[in-house]
Amino acid sequence: MSLCVFPGSFDPMTCGHLDLIQRAAGIFDKVSVTVMINRDKSGVIPLEERVSLIRIACGHIPNVRVELWDGLLADYIRLHPGAVVVRGVRSVSEFEREKAAAVINRRLNPGLETFLIPAADEWEGLSSTTVREIASFGGDISDFVPDTICTQVQKWLLPKENR
Amino acid sequence: MSLCVFPGSFDPMTCGHLDLIQRAAGIFDKVSVTVMINRDKSGVIPLEERVSLIRIACGHIPNVRVELWDGLLADYIRLHPGAVVVRGVRSVSEFEREKAAAVINRRLNPGLETFLIPAADEWEGLSSTTVREIASFGGDISDFVPDTICTQVQKWLLPKENR
Amino acid sequence: MSLCVFPGSFDPMTCGHLDLIQRAAGIFDKVSVTVMINRDKSGVIPLEERVSLIRIACGHIPNVRVELWDGLLADYIRLHPGAVVVRGVRSVSEFEREKAAAVINRRLNPGLETFLIPAADEWEGLSSTTVREIASFGGDISDFVPDTICTQVQKWLLPKENR
Amino acid sequence: MSLCVFPGSFDPMTCGHLDLIQRAAGIFDKVSVTVMINRDKSGVIPLEERVSLIRIACGHIPNVRVELWDGLLADYIRLHPGAVVVRGVRSVSEFEREKAAAVINRRLNPGLETFLIPAADEWEGLSSTTVREIASFGGDISDFVPDTICTQVQKWLLPKENR
Amino acid sequence: MSLCVFPGSFDPMTCGHLDLIQRAAGIFDKVSVTVMINRDKSGVIPLEERVSLIRIACGHIPNVRVELWDGLLADYIRLHPGAVVVRGVRSVSEFEREKAAAVINRRLNPGLETFLIPAADEWEGLSSTTVREIASFGGDISDFVPDTICTQVQKWLLPKENR
Amino acid sequence: MSLCVFPGSFDPMTCGHLDLIQRAAGIFDKVSVTVMINRDKSGVIPLEERVSLIRIACGHIPNVRVELWDGLLADYIRLHPGAVVVRGVRSVSEFEREKAAAVINRRLNPGLETFLIPAADEWEGLSSTTVREIASFGGDISDFVPDTICTQVQKWLLPKENR
Repeated sequence: MSLCVFPGSFDPMTCGHLDLIQRAAGIFDKVSVTVMINRDKSGVIPLEERVSLIRIACGHIPNVRVELWDGLLADYIRLHPGAVVVRGVRSVSEFEREKAAAVINRRLNPGLETFLIPAADEWEGLSSTTVREIASFGGDISDFVPDTICTQVQKWLLPKENR
Repeated sequence: MSLCVFPGSFDPMTCGHLDLIQRAAGIFDKVSVTVMINRDKSGVIPLEERVSLIRIACGHIPNVRVELWDGLLADYIRLHPGAVVVRGVRSVSEFEREKAAAVINRRLNPGLETFLIPAADEWEGLSSTTVREIASFGGDISDFVPDTICTQVQKWLLPKENR
Repeated sequence: MSLCVFPGSFDPMTCGHLDLIQRAAGIFDKVSVTVMINRDKSGVIPLEERVSLIRIACGHIPNVRVELWDGLLADYIRLHPGAVVVRGVRSVSEFEREKAAAVINRRLNPGLETFLIPAADEWEGLSSTTVREIASFGGDISDFVPDTICTQVQKWLLPKENR
Repeated sequence: MSLCVFPGSFDPMTCGHLDLIQRAAGIFDKVSVTVMINRDKSGVIPLEERVSLIRIACGHIPNVRVELWDGLLADYIRLHPGAVVVRGVRSVSEFEREKAAAVINRRLNPGLETFLIPAADEWEGLSSTTVREIASFGGDISDFVPDTICTQVQKWLLPKENR
Repeated sequence: MSLCVFPGSFDPMTCGHLDLIQRAAGIFDKVSVTVMINRDKSGVIPLEERVSLIRIACGHIPNVRVELWDGLLADYIRLHPGAVVVRGVRSVSEFEREKAAAVINRRLNPGLETFLIPAADEWEGLSSTTVREIASFGGDISDFVPDTICTQVQKWLLPKENR
Repeated sequence: MSLCVFPGSFDPMTCGHLDLIQRAAGIFDKVSVTVMINRDKSGVIPLEERVSLIRIACGHIPNVRVELWDGLLADYIRLHPGAVVVRGVRSVSEFEREKAAAVINRRLNPGLETFLIPAADEWEGLSSTTVREIASFGGDISDFVPDTICTQVQKWLLPKENR
């Protein structure tokens, strides 16, 4: 059974993420969306909340599961031998970061394969950072975040004085 | 009447900024230099001070006005329909950031057009960050900052213990 | 009166070109679409035919004129002082080529300003070369070439044995 | 059953290609290595010969088949619905070309998914063009071409006067 | 006598750094490895400790000396006229940063020449940041850091609660 | 004695080349400017003529010699052990090409080191191709080609009908 791991920080999940997860779910038997903990950056939305938002947004895709992982990606894959890592790529800078990560990950775990999927053109330019910035000025993020979680995401990202 | 908006953080304004503003002022009827407030980074020079430094540096260009904006660029343009956003671009990384921003801004406001101007070769490599770094070691920034504001900028950027 | 020059080889014109011309026509008083002759490459569609195809495709935009130019862009602009060159940019490689051209053009004619417009996300990846390649295999180019000229373009690009 | 299509011109096949095919063969049930005919460039090694060289080099991988295709990739995938296109990517320029191709291919065939695999570090910088150039000066290509086909490839690529 | 300056923050030194220093030491009469102080980021490993770790790792290369510098690179070179700055480059983003720095450094000190060396393919993707991240999860960094200093580096980078 | 090899096709030599040769000549004991023969492209200016034009343009730099080489760069360096290859780099695309070449060259000859020098900002965007294009339209190339050879280069590059 083929397993695809889709790691990220999802702070918050965007429509670009959802599009990639749906496409991966059409190809692989199972997709594991994995919220990676970054020890240097705590982020804005609490980790457990990010997991539950992704669960809601992916509720209609039966072969998706969502998890939290506090460790290296290479170690996660060690627990799921044969799993393939899938990452969306929008830009050249992102491609370079992903290529470097893929090379290092194969050093740490030679069985770890990374597939990069070019983001759909309509999600070009979209990132979690952009969504946070728009929301921080009270802007409308409904075009960029899945409908099912938009209100909740907006609440988390509102400037503190307006919450 | 054609209006060009030149947004940025200008912390501090550099000779590269001034060159682009002068070139834009030769093409558009009016140029609005807009100091954008970033809610995540307060910066080094106080916002009102940045505005007044740009006003001094652009004093000789009659069709330039300088403003502070606490909001999204897309909302600023909503108040100035027909205005065109102009951004200087020095490098490939910067081009990618600007392209992503332009795409998102058109989603937020379909009338928002962004023109990118390649920086003049003599200002290649120059950025506000570079100026701050040189000044932090007491280095000479007079080649990189407009003459009319150089002394004041140097004072703001001096390491605190030397002010 | 503001004049914008939109130069290219247009072999053939694509929907991406048309989108940029329409956007420029909304900003400048007049847009001159200029088919540049390349002395090293004759191209596939005859030059006069490219001009007439662009004229048809832009027939609905009153402030557009189409011309052929056998010379340097810098010399064309010398005949139209104050005109601004506008170029669409899709990728990082293209940005680098355009930046280099802009720098050299300002050396040849210091009054020549180049504005780069990021291509709309839906035309990302589209180029005249791609259209020619698809057509060479008898593929369907109707999504990529303006409706008004699609049949004619298809005929020019068909593999010779099928014409 | 999962099918992966690995398209290219393979003029000639390199160790970088073989490495990617082996990795794909470990993940997908079947890998179809597809020699694409380019109507504009005939290449150096005859097409049928390229197919037979790849067959020899992949002889030890049971789930690989090799084919010739005279058409668009989008049409090939139409005949193999559910197949995933896999491409190796070494550099930023190559990434941009592949991203543009992936976007256009999805327009031509919305079911066509492209996965990009970062080339292994040891094959960075290696391309068919490089192999041809080295061989054209009588240089040693044995580090860059699979052992099983090296002598034959060298013969095809020798400068004509030395064959 | 030819002198090469190899500046960096070395937080920590990696195998990629050591490879470049060894290669430079084979070409220049003397190599000065210079730990640059960054006034904005204190880093993880104390500065004096970084110097002593590099001294250990380079102990077998007779023509290398290690120093700490609290100032601009341009000023360091003023004290060592004729010295050439050597920097390793792994990626396009890094190349752009180094090119910008080289241009600014020549403005500050016209005698300052910067040579960029492409990193060896086996150290592609490796950076001090990556080493810190791997170590922060208790991962194995012994492939990425010189043997002679690996235990000490690991100790410095361990998450605080595990030290 | 330190030797630097500066390879290229020099069709024609530009002011950018001359600037890099002068800078290299200030650092290395000897600079060998090496005109590389490309078996696939004959170029515009005859090879022997290119050599003699570079000799004229470099006449004032005592430690420069000019040569023609019909072979691989790796083999040239085998005849000059310890020589360092120096290449100017203007853009990201060029950097990627040079990095790939450097990696392959070290495979062919492990002693071959390549140093990349960022082009001076004033020669950004300048290339032999640009010079040929400008000259093909009878444009003025005197800003881009060394004074001492400008008239001769212009004659070689004139469109055939005007010679």
